[in-house]
Amino acid sequence: MIYTITLNPAIDQLLFVKNDIEKRQANRIIRSEWDCGGKGLHVSGVLSKFSIKNEALGIVGSQNRAALYSILSEKQIAHDFLVQDGARTRTSFVIISEESSGSIMMPEAGFPTSEANKIALLEQIRQKVTQEDIVVIAGSPPPNFTLADFGTLLKAVKATGCFVACDVSGAYLHVAVKIGVDFIKPNEHEIEEILVDKTKTLVENINLLAKNIRYLIVSLSGEGSYCAHQGRVYRIIAPQVLEKNDTGAGDCFVGAFIAGISDQLPLQEILKRATGCSASKVMHADSSTFSMVEAEILKEQVTIIEVEEM
Amino acid sequence: MIYTITLNPAIDQLLFVKNDIEKRQANRIIRSEWDCGGKGLHVSGVLSKFSIKNEALGIVGSQNRAALYSILSEKQIAHDFLVQDGARTRTSFVIISEESSGSIMMPEAGFPTSEANKIALLEQIRQKVTQEDIVVIAGSPPPNFTLADFGTLLKAVKATGCFVACDVSGAYLHVAVKIGVDFIKPNEHEIEEILVDKTKTLVENINLLAKNIRYLIVSLSGEGSYCAHQGRVYRIIAPQVLEKNDTGAGDCFVGAFIAGISDQLPLQEILKRATGCSASKVMHADSSTFSMVEAEILKEQVTIIEVEEM
Repeated sequence: MIYTITLNPAIDQLLFVKNDIEKRQANRIIRSEWDCGGKGLHVSGVLSKFSIKNEALGIVGSQNRAALYSILSEKQIAHDFLVQDGARTRTSFVIISEESSGSIMMPEAGFPTSEANKIALLEQIRQKVTQEDIVVIAGSPPPNFTLADFGTLLKAVKATGCFVACDVSGAYLHVAVKIGVDFIKPNEHEIEEILVDKTKTLVENINLLAKNIRYLIVSLSGEGSYCAHQGRVYRIIAPQVLEKNDTGAGDCFVGAFIAGISDQLPLQEILKRATGCSASKVMHADSSTFSMVEAEILKEQVTIIEVEEM
Repeated sequence: MIYTITLNPAIDQLLFVKNDIEKRQANRIIRSEWDCGGKGLHVSGVLSKFSIKNEALGIVGSQNRAALYSILSEKQIAHDFLVQDGARTRTSFVIISEESSGSIMMPEAGFPTSEANKIALLEQIRQKVTQEDIVVIAGSPPPNFTLADFGTLLKAVKATGCFVACDVSGAYLHVAVKIGVDFIKPNEHEIEEILVDKTKTLVENINLLAKNIRYLIVSLSGEGSYCAHQGRVYRIIAPQVLEKNDTGAGDCFVGAFIAGISDQLPLQEILKRATGCSASKVMHADSSTFSMVEAEILKEQVTIIEVEEM
């Protein structure tokens, strides 16, 4: 089984306008849509699209639970959330203009996790997760979920012996690397936080880091990525596409990569699939839509080169 | 009694962020607030703040009626709305950055008024309004509310013999001027629509227009306004204030002006009060807050000059 953990889930409210928004004028909303939000839930969405069984875990607020669950049911995302009484799952507003590229993300902070729910989550992991499973922890934790809490959670997941993927940034990424996980996917800026030796090149640092991380991806946005695995470093060159909105491309990559791990595909195939899916995502205006058909075509345009150590 | 008519009411959702919003980054929402929206409701809010009895009319959707009514009750706005079954009152998103001036308005279109409710509104006006009353029709009508519908509504209001104030723009303003009302307040751009003789100056045009309109205001944003009444034209110079957000300043002016008419104050006093209130509004970040104390101080800094005809 694959479990995704979204510590700070959201309801994404997508507001479509015609042009880039401006002050001192009415920026009419043409239409609005709802999506589930939080990186872990987007990863679940990708897995479900690949028809790979998965369950979303995390903590949601009781107040607007029905609204979130109806979105999840539409996206065929199975879940077993802990519910925090009296709390409201945050809204993340996404403003998308139809005639320009890129979107504006306006996330609320989210409610602080109760101590009882922090403990309940650890207990849930101990009961559910076995060493055959994959756990994906993705997205920044909410207020009140400290670095120590995050460390405790990671250790509980690791203790099950499962495959642990972790897509977080900043100090949380640092904790993940220190504790040791099977998969991380920082971008060029995020990796700054965990560089082993700042006098060395990026590739040299990737080599050093990869000693403790089974699959280390460094994403380079439209340029593709690096992947380090079993002492080798690969440079993945993404196909050039017409960019509409690159928000969510990372979640799409992670979801498709984990789908490949679950399907036990060869690494080159996994990397091509994940790169194809995220390239397809970039061509769509919202934060989670990609096309399986487009991804299949784009996959064939992905180039992978092994990087020689200097 | 004063009645305000808001044909396309809204629930304003105010989203406060720290800096100006940008693409490709998380623009964290610091806090969010709710307000009633639509020009007519903002005018009602000002009248209620002046402790002047008034009732808000218009058509709201049944789906989120409770949410709107609880905001109105908090603002002590009395109302007798018609309710359209299965419809949802639109949301108008207002993004306010704490460290810059001006706001971003993102209004939804609103639901189309049913034919039954168009008729019910006319009937309601016939039953409620007498010639001692004041009716303020403010804000653009919703989809499906045609120019002809608007004309029919205005005529029904006029037929009661009451004082009719109308704050609309574009072709609706044109209809209001054609039918003849007691008060309009176009800005420099909106008045273009109704200029009588484009070869003449603005003041000459104001003189021509004012023959059919008892109180004609032309607002000049931070510069103040013109007012034409009983064959005279006045230039009102607004006090200079630190602008935080000028959205809603017009509604504040209209509300305070109508409050003055209701209190039967002399015109100069009405103009000073209205200009003071809207100057106070400009100093506040949201779309409807102003301070009665600030307005009293600012009122004394308003200069009114009678404009001589050339």
